[in-house]
Amino acid sequence: MLIDLMKDTRSFRRFKQEPAPTMANLISLIDIARLTPSTANRQPLKYVLVKSEQVLPEVFSCLTWAGYLKDWDGPSTSEQPSAYIVILSDSALSKHPGIDVGLAAQSILLGAQELGFGACLLAAIDRPRLGEVLDLPENLEIQLVVALGTPGEEVRLASVGDDGSIRYYRDEQDVHFVPKRSRDELIEKTL
Amino acid sequence: MLIDLMKDTRSFRRFKQEPAPTMANLISLIDIARLTPSTANRQPLKYVLVKSEQVLPEVFSCLTWAGYLKDWDGPSTSEQPSAYIVILSDSALSKHPGIDVGLAAQSILLGAQELGFGACLLAAIDRPRLGEVLDLPENLEIQLVVALGTPGEEVRLASVGDDGSIRYYRDEQDVHFVPKRSRDELIEKTL
Repeated sequence: MLIDLMKDTRSFRRFKQEPAPTMANLISLIDIARLTPSTANRQPLKYVLVKSEQVLPEVFSCLTWAGYLKDWDGPSTSEQPSAYIVILSDSALSKHPGIDVGLAAQSILLGAQELGFGACLLAAIDRPRLGEVLDLPENLEIQLVVALGTPGEEVRLASVGDDGSIRYYRDEQDVHFVPKRSRDELIEKTL
Repeated sequence: MLIDLMKDTRSFRRFKQEPAPTMANLISLIDIARLTPSTANRQPLKYVLVKSEQVLPEVFSCLTWAGYLKDWDGPSTSEQPSAYIVILSDSALSKHPGIDVGLAAQSILLGAQELGFGACLLAAIDRPRLGEVLDLPENLEIQLVVALGTPGEEVRLASVGDDGSIRYYRDEQDVHFVPKRSRDELIEKTL
C-alpha cells in the first residue's frame, strides 16, 4: 500500500556507508522520475547522478544540513550520503519549474525507499560552487540535491505539540522526531 | 512495484461519472499528502475537498483544460470530474511553497491511482473567481486544482518524435498520447 511506503519515506540525514546505491539503482530512479507528470508536459528537468568517491565529498561540501538542529554540524565523515541525484532545470524549456521539481522529487524519494535506501532533499546549496563541481552548462539551474544512502538513524513521525512548533528535534536516544500537522489542520473545508 | 503505479498514473481529462470518489476517499488522500516531506517541515499547504453537486460545476467553470488540444473545449458535461482537491498554501507559513506543492500533488496523484481513480493537475485557474466560490480567507493562495474521477479515456505514453515536440495529442481513435523524453535525454551526466 502506498500509505505504508509514504510512512517509511522520511528524510534521513545520517547514513551507513554500505550498502550504497549502485549506478543502476540511480538510473532506475530516473526511470521513475521520467514518468512523473510535468507542467504542460515540458519535462524541463535533467539529472546528474553522483557515485564516484572523488566527487561525493565535493558535493557534500556544497550542502547545508538540518537548519533546526543548531548543535549539529551535519553528518560526520562516516555518516555522509553514498550517492546523490542533483535535480536541474533547463531554463530554455521552462522558466518556472517549481512544481515539476517537487513532483519528480517525490517520485525519486518513494523509489529510493522502495529500494531500501533513505534520502533527504537539500535546497540549502552553494549553487555557484556546485555548478563548478558538476561543470554545468549555463542553461541548467540547480534546483535540489537528493542525498541518498542506507539510513543510519531512526526517524519517527510525531504530532505538533501545544506550542505549535513544527521544528524537528532529537531526543536523548538520538532519535529524530518530525512533528506533522493533523489531518484536521490540513483540511480547510469540505464542500 | 512503484514503477507500475507510476506508469498507470497518467493525467486524465475525461471522466465517467460513476464510480465517483467518496469524501472518505478524498480524506484518505489528505492522509497521504500529510506524510509528504515539506521544506523546513513548515507544512504550509491546506486543502479544500469538493464533492457537492452544487459546487462541482462552479469549480469546473474556473478551469482551463489541455492547452495543446486547440480543437477541444474541455470535458463535456457527462465527462467532467466528480471530485476536486484544491491545494492551497498559507502565506503566513511560507512565501515560496512551490516545491511543497509538487511533492504533495504527486502523493495525491499516486494515491488516487491506487484507489482506481484518475486525476489531472490544473494550474490554469481563474483564481479570483475560485477564491470566491470556495470563500477563502486572504492568507490562503490557490496553488493547484486536482480534478478526480473514474478515467473515461485511454492515455498512453509515447516517445518524443524526430520533431522534438512534447505536445500531447489524440489519434483518430481518440486515444490520448503523451510524448516523454528518453532516459538518456534526462541524464545530463554520471560522475
